[in-house]
Amino acid sequence: MDCIFCKIAAGQIPAKKVFEDGEIVAFRDINPVAPTHVLIIPREHIETINDLEPGHAAIVGRLHLAARELARQEGLAERGYRLVFNCGPEAGQAVFHIHLHLIGGRKLSWPPG
Amino acid sequence: MDCIFCKIAAGQIPAKKVFEDGEIVAFRDINPVAPTHVLIIPREHIETINDLEPGHAAIVGRLHLAARELARQEGLAERGYRLVFNCGPEAGQAVFHIHLHLIGGRKLSWPPG
Repeated sequence: MDCIFCKIAAGQIPAKKVFEDGEIVAFRDINPVAPTHVLIIPREHIETINDLEPGHAAIVGRLHLAARELARQEGLAERGYRLVFNCGPEAGQAVFHIHLHLIGGRKLSWPPG
Repeated sequence: MDCIFCKIAAGQIPAKKVFEDGEIVAFRDINPVAPTHVLIIPREHIETINDLEPGHAAIVGRLHLAARELARQEGLAERGYRLVFNCGPEAGQAVFHIHLHLIGGRKLSWPPG
């Protein structure tokens, strides 16, 4: 298990966690690009969006329910926020364990990269 | 029903559809920001990510499975792609029917807006 996000989920390396339950862990990005920048991951090690199987639909949906709730806690529900998954090299995916970026707290421009 | 995306889903106004089934419709963005820019929506009218309920987890997950498959069809599986949900004013959400942006075909920069 050389995956840094698996180790964060397991509590083996530190992170500023903001939520966890039996299936999901959320923690602050160490290189935030906005006042709120949280990564929301499944405990299950799924490398990329390309690796999603039909059986993963529920957990991917639950990542978004967690994002909605965290956005509310961060005071972003009304202001707004952006959710981003990067997959592969042209998107700059840096850790090969899927992670949903919750980004907000400033005006976000378009296009998104 | 004044929602433009509900009307696209129902076939009442035209769009360049690339996929549809009983729950999901995908079509090309009319203002693409990359060579591939597809919007993937549930047929169910859900205004924003803030409006997600636990019962929506499966359909939100299925939007991502559709994105994975469309990315493959567009030749992006290996190159990579970005998936984006905008929620509310600071993210620039323009249509209040949730839509997952599938963006790829060029190098995407960071931060994502």
